[in-house]
Amino acid sequence: MKLYTYFRSSAAYRVRIALNLKGLDAELIPIHLVNHGGEQHSAAYRQVNPSGLVPALCDDDFTLTQSLSIIEYLDEKYTETSLLTQDLQQRAQVRAFSLSIACDIHPLNNLRILQYLTQTLELSDAQKSAWYAHWIEIGFQALEAQLIHSNGKFCFGEQATLADCCLIPQVYNAKRFNIDLSAYPKIESIYAHCNTLHAFQRAAPEAQAEAN
Amino acid sequence: MKLYTYFRSSAAYRVRIALNLKGLDAELIPIHLVNHGGEQHSAAYRQVNPSGLVPALCDDDFTLTQSLSIIEYLDEKYTETSLLTQDLQQRAQVRAFSLSIACDIHPLNNLRILQYLTQTLELSDAQKSAWYAHWIEIGFQALEAQLIHSNGKFCFGEQATLADCCLIPQVYNAKRFNIDLSAYPKIESIYAHCNTLHAFQRAAPEAQAEAN
Repeated sequence: MKLYTYFRSSAAYRVRIALNLKGLDAELIPIHLVNHGGEQHSAAYRQVNPSGLVPALCDDDFTLTQSLSIIEYLDEKYTETSLLTQDLQQRAQVRAFSLSIACDIHPLNNLRILQYLTQTLELSDAQKSAWYAHWIEIGFQALEAQLIHSNGKFCFGEQATLADCCLIPQVYNAKRFNIDLSAYPKIESIYAHCNTLHAFQRAAPEAQAEAN
Repeated sequence: MKLYTYFRSSAAYRVRIALNLKGLDAELIPIHLVNHGGEQHSAAYRQVNPSGLVPALCDDDFTLTQSLSIIEYLDEKYTETSLLTQDLQQRAQVRAFSLSIACDIHPLNNLRILQYLTQTLELSDAQKSAWYAHWIEIGFQALEAQLIHSNGKFCFGEQATLADCCLIPQVYNAKRFNIDLSAYPKIESIYAHCNTLHAFQRAAPEAQAEAN
């Protein structure tokens, strides 16, 4: 398997965590989202993913995009160490939490949006920062409310799930933008715990070859 | 089952289609996103969904948010008429396509974002329209590219899937904003075909009680 990735992409980071949690090896191919005008826009990468977004997974001749569908695919193909749990309602909650990040927070604050705000709309840095903080605050309040039964180590249950694969990169991203997260103690606790685990450490942006 | 819905919400519209396709009955409870300052912000609705977004599903004492997790939950609980197909790779493609809408297009163009653009950032109507059209254009190009093998009736395979549940509301929304979609013939063809089907017609915004 090959994973097209970028060290700071939250979506790629989710898949790197999932691969590690499941003990799967993939060749990581860096697509630099900033250098060379953004390698994701190259004709070569558009052949892999017409949307020009990372990540993309190639499993022999099958190419798949979208981090959540990639993780669900890996979970269905390699059934050991399920990232979705077996309980119908808990699976649904894991997915809902993950989608709260993937649909309600991350799309508003990723690179292409921030570029549009500052380049096309010519907003100030202060306006961009306020935009970023606004969606984090609304989004994290909703996340924290969903974690009421969390043990403070993982989002749901006694082991890492898709929810943790999504949460840790989003928290990393918020911290990079200097957002104060002290109002979200469950989120902070899960972030601290997961980052003690090798699967999460190996997936972190700083641990990627292209980060250096 | 109860579904908290709003006639023009693309996300609620997805779930209404899925319920109809699966032949499931749910009591539809309208949450008006505009009247009364937005009923989704009320304390009563925040009890149901802390994020203040529609839809939300209540299945006895189990409450679930996020349209895609609701549809997956219904598909796992009621296995007749699968909306995800049984083939591993096709399921993954159906999910990837659906997420391309739910993560890359819809979050950027829904009500709360457009309100932020015009109210908080005080952008002009022309800037708001350009924003809307920009993300539709980029997003629809990527969708059309994923439909290369579509039969022109449904996104994938010979029957409606989660992908069609997501596509039809997004196209409806784009048309409401007067976006020219003639560059996307597969999308237009699938939209026309699905809207001949009772399950899609019954789910349409105009068919909802609160639309009148």
